[in-house]
Amino acid sequence: MNVHNNVRPNMARLWSMLMRSAEIGATPGGGLNRLALSDDDATMRRQFIDWCVEAGCRIQIDGVGNIFATRAGRDPCAKPVLVGSHLDTQVHGGRFDGILGVLAGLELVHTLNEFAITTKHPITVVNWTNEEGARFEPPMMGSAIFTGHRTPDYAWARTDRHGVTLGEELDRLGFKGTDTLTPDLFDSLFELHIEQGPRLDAEKVPVGVVTGAFTVHGHVIQIRGETGHAGPTPMPSRRNALVAASLVMLAVDEIGWQFHGEEGKSTTTRLKAEPNLLGAIPKFVELNCDMRHPTAAGADAMISAFRKRLPELEERSRCSIEVTESWTYGGVELDKTCTDLVRSAAARLGYATKDLLTEAGHDALHTASVLPATIIFTPCEGGVSHNEKENVTIADIEPGMNVLLQAVLARAKLAE
Amino acid sequence: MNVHNNVRPNMARLWSMLMRSAEIGATPGGGLNRLALSDDDATMRRQFIDWCVEAGCRIQIDGVGNIFATRAGRDPCAKPVLVGSHLDTQVHGGRFDGILGVLAGLELVHTLNEFAITTKHPITVVNWTNEEGARFEPPMMGSAIFTGHRTPDYAWARTDRHGVTLGEELDRLGFKGTDTLTPDLFDSLFELHIEQGPRLDAEKVPVGVVTGAFTVHGHVIQIRGETGHAGPTPMPSRRNALVAASLVMLAVDEIGWQFHGEEGKSTTTRLKAEPNLLGAIPKFVELNCDMRHPTAAGADAMISAFRKRLPELEERSRCSIEVTESWTYGGVELDKTCTDLVRSAAARLGYATKDLLTEAGHDALHTASVLPATIIFTPCEGGVSHNEKENVTIADIEPGMNVLLQAVLARAKLAE
Repeated sequence: MNVHNNVRPNMARLWSMLMRSAEIGATPGGGLNRLALSDDDATMRRQFIDWCVEAGCRIQIDGVGNIFATRAGRDPCAKPVLVGSHLDTQVHGGRFDGILGVLAGLELVHTLNEFAITTKHPITVVNWTNEEGARFEPPMMGSAIFTGHRTPDYAWARTDRHGVTLGEELDRLGFKGTDTLTPDLFDSLFELHIEQGPRLDAEKVPVGVVTGAFTVHGHVIQIRGETGHAGPTPMPSRRNALVAASLVMLAVDEIGWQFHGEEGKSTTTRLKAEPNLLGAIPKFVELNCDMRHPTAAGADAMISAFRKRLPELEERSRCSIEVTESWTYGGVELDKTCTDLVRSAAARLGYATKDLLTEAGHDALHTASVLPATIIFTPCEGGVSHNEKENVTIADIEPGMNVLLQAVLARAKLAE
Repeated sequence: MNVHNNVRPNMARLWSMLMRSAEIGATPGGGLNRLALSDDDATMRRQFIDWCVEAGCRIQIDGVGNIFATRAGRDPCAKPVLVGSHLDTQVHGGRFDGILGVLAGLELVHTLNEFAITTKHPITVVNWTNEEGARFEPPMMGSAIFTGHRTPDYAWARTDRHGVTLGEELDRLGFKGTDTLTPDLFDSLFELHIEQGPRLDAEKVPVGVVTGAFTVHGHVIQIRGETGHAGPTPMPSRRNALVAASLVMLAVDEIGWQFHGEEGKSTTTRLKAEPNLLGAIPKFVELNCDMRHPTAAGADAMISAFRKRLPELEERSRCSIEVTESWTYGGVELDKTCTDLVRSAAARLGYATKDLLTEAGHDALHTASVLPATIIFTPCEGGVSHNEKENVTIADIEPGMNVLLQAVLARAKLAE
């Protein structure tokens, strides 16, 4: 197999696409607020499609708005290699999370065009709808539909905080496509992503080889106290749900610290209180929290250490504390053949690598259940992500981009 | 002065009005959700006006929707005695808070009609707009405009959580009146109210003579941490604003317990977190809390004990914690002449009384700065209020109603 080690991406072109993207939904703090299927997301999607068409790709859009831009291969029987990630962001999101993976796919196509390389397998750049879940829950939705984890009906019915459904927004913006694209039509998936953690940056390792994912347990916790007048109700008569919530949130945090030596993490991300009004003792709180650990056993240990504390917290706060929903993801191993292609590409290019587990969710984790899939990490400044200050330099992402290009070239094979 | 000790209100009539009110905005839990200037509040206001007109009163409405229903007196130079409270409720409010005070005023008018009693001073039943502040903040707004604490412009511009202004709602519902009613036009104010605390109920004392008010200090606290990915961000790099908020809320609660022996109380009533999304570490929290104490010095001591703890909580959470707004109310003494009328009415009627300070805010506290004003408390079941379970029996409120009637008769004087 002839590997084009001298083929190099045009980093200035990739950067210029990233910076154009950074204008669409830009926040005053230097980040992006480009929620899934917002007007800004639609603008970015159209920009992406324009660029793909200019690069000679054929565009297909499925029923939940996943966009597939395909550069033809030479063998009509060879299935396309997917390369991509997502263009939507968090509310206080950064300029690179997800976006790098999609635009790196497009840069890969540009590079092949420029070097007049034809691969045996087609290459399909993909933008998954609503990876972040910051507007419509759950996250990683587009890839969940693609892989059959969820149905389109389920996705269409999801509502944002104003009661607008994902289906309505797809219709309004013209992104409810009619193409049917199923995993059996594809060969494999490669996702380039910033690490969103500090390890590569701290250790000055340019390429992260993601071999699998942390196990993540999420909980919805409902706390019921009793409302009453914030004035005359004597302290001993109170059952303030926010006091109970405070105890629970500190317990969640303490579990994270307790397992910190094993890389465990825990977070309360969201809180909703009722009636949440001046003058009234809070009667109800709903919390969302999650606990993450490199091993399934460790994640289970975190959860059971947490649950063991709840009766004591109920007693102290005189509120009921109930786990009403829980979910798990991760605990996935990525495809060894694909990660080996990543490792050997890095070796040929002279880049040091580090094997990592991803601690965040990625579309490739869903995809890994139906296709050979892998993730390549680039360093990012201080590991900061889901934050307007999220940052990378061209030098941070160039090794990952080169490795992506070489690994995908190896997988998609040069035409024979 | 001839006191009509044998004049008695018709408790069945009063109860029937209370139960009619309890249908307008009824909640499944047996309470009321009748936010200020909602459709239900408008329905109740129109019902109240109809009843007042049937009872022969003249209706006047001022620019912020305060409703004044006046039963004429004999002396054209004598100023009316105000009797009233408010018809709006909390979201999970009870059926008696405020409502009792307004309908007791109307029952008083009915009773005088029935006994063909003409007083020297007119009697004006008043419904103050937006006492609760559960929809438009701050609370006690109508009385604040009446007394000149705030301007109508200020009130009209207040918005609810959907951005609708109080002025727009007054216009929509037809309650932006054109009558000018200022404190100098009135003689005094009597407000009958459920205690909203457990003391009268526990001690089986039928009448509370409110001599003044607790000092209440309120704080708005802003907590700034940093957002980031809830997955890969290592525990030591986190500045989770909800963790800091938990520490602050527990400190608020602990201060209340510390001063509990002196009747101090403290509450975190409201919390707003950002971005409040799955997957993101919370970066910002705004809390509302208040501390209440029978004495100004005690309330100050609570606040300073609380503030002293903040630097330690900042250090533990690595978030900034800032008191961005504070307000104070209460610390008011009510008019001795009026409270003496209440005490002597109770004595004549053979009811035991207990002197109390109110721990809640009441329109009469604003009014007390411009008019002789007093508050009469009735017991309420278990002291529960701002709660759908708030409850009284006819037997609980009959003594207060009788005392109100006799005290107002004494103040308004029989025609000579």
